[in-house]
Amino acid sequence: MNFCSQCGKDIAIRVPEGDNRERHVCLHCSTIHYQNPRIITGTLPVLGERVLLCKRAIEPRHGLWTLPAGFMENGETTEQGAVRETWEEARANVDIKALYTLFNLPQINQVYFFYRATLNDSNFGPGPESLEVELFYEHEVPWQEIAFPVITETLQHYFADQKENNFPFRTKDLIRPLSKPRP
Amino acid sequence: MNFCSQCGKDIAIRVPEGDNRERHVCLHCSTIHYQNPRIITGTLPVLGERVLLCKRAIEPRHGLWTLPAGFMENGETTEQGAVRETWEEARANVDIKALYTLFNLPQINQVYFFYRATLNDSNFGPGPESLEVELFYEHEVPWQEIAFPVITETLQHYFADQKENNFPFRTKDLIRPLSKPRP
Ligand SMILES: [Zn+2]
Ligand SMILES: [Zn+2]
Repeated sequence: MNFCSQCGKDIAIRVPEGDNRERHVCLHCSTIHYQNPRIITGTLPVLGERVLLCKRAIEPRHGLWTLPAGFMENGETTEQGAVRETWEEARANVDIKALYTLFNLPQINQVYFFYRATLNDSNFGPGPESLEVELFYEHEVPWQEIAFPVITETLQHYFADQKENNFPFRTKDLIRPLSKPRP
Repeated sequence: MNFCSQCGKDIAIRVPEGDNRERHVCLHCSTIHYQNPRIITGTLPVLGERVLLCKRAIEPRHGLWTLPAGFMENGETTEQGAVRETWEEARANVDIKALYTLFNLPQINQVYFFYRATLNDSNFGPGPESLEVELFYEHEVPWQEIAFPVITETLQHYFADQKENNFPFRTKDLIRPLSKPRP
């Protein structure tokens, strides 16, 4: 951030009066430009005993498998965002069951929501951000090719919970070093 | 938003290629300025059978009662943000029990988190954004002077759940017209 989005003048890093953190502040029009974490919302789509995964067509983690999820938009709920992303990435229509996992990733200023969902039918296919979309039984999941730890954790919980037919809501903070670029 | 925070030139409203919504886009440097919902995180602090409320010293809803809560900051978790806001607004140290209520307010692009928490002691008092901080038994709660519906709902659930000593996690979407300015 270099310029004030209100007046176009230079911005500075300052602790505003009455605040206790550095912010991007415009010295010309006094606007304080706050930056806040973003929500990523998605689903765990289920058909019978199988779960739906998408092979990523975009960076980061191009070619690895993920659950359909993306940035929540203004004007929608976390649930609506999860349904929208599932359509955009997997061309799948889902019915939401319940919020299932919630992860804080404070190093990258993200909060992840995953909803358990059921596929309405087996009509699905890759949207523009996916290379492939497939259903997997537990023994078929490509565990070594999962894009993000939040996906691995959500899938592990699901297959364990499926055996008990009980799906408690879970929250976890994933506080770990930022991953290094892969060779 | 009038100017590009990257290059300082004018911005326009456009649907970027590959997108399906209007965004603030810089026609000079091509930066897309996304706007996303923000998280408000706080606690329901409990001491014995009483709950802690703060009388707001700031707008909106100056003079009405609220639970300690505020915008989540970059670099923290929702739980850390809730503990920080409880200190800032009520000068209270709390132990977090569990995430208790989660509300979507899509008209104002906010997602609210409230954690059940226990007060470590009865040392507390107003921070700069509070006029008063007090403990209330259920029959003492000023129901007609609560600042926001998310606070009323969280308190109602709590006092009902307290009788059963069972505090299930709850989510709700509050989709309602924006409130008109009060006379
Ligand atoms: Zn300015
Ligand atoms: Zn620009």
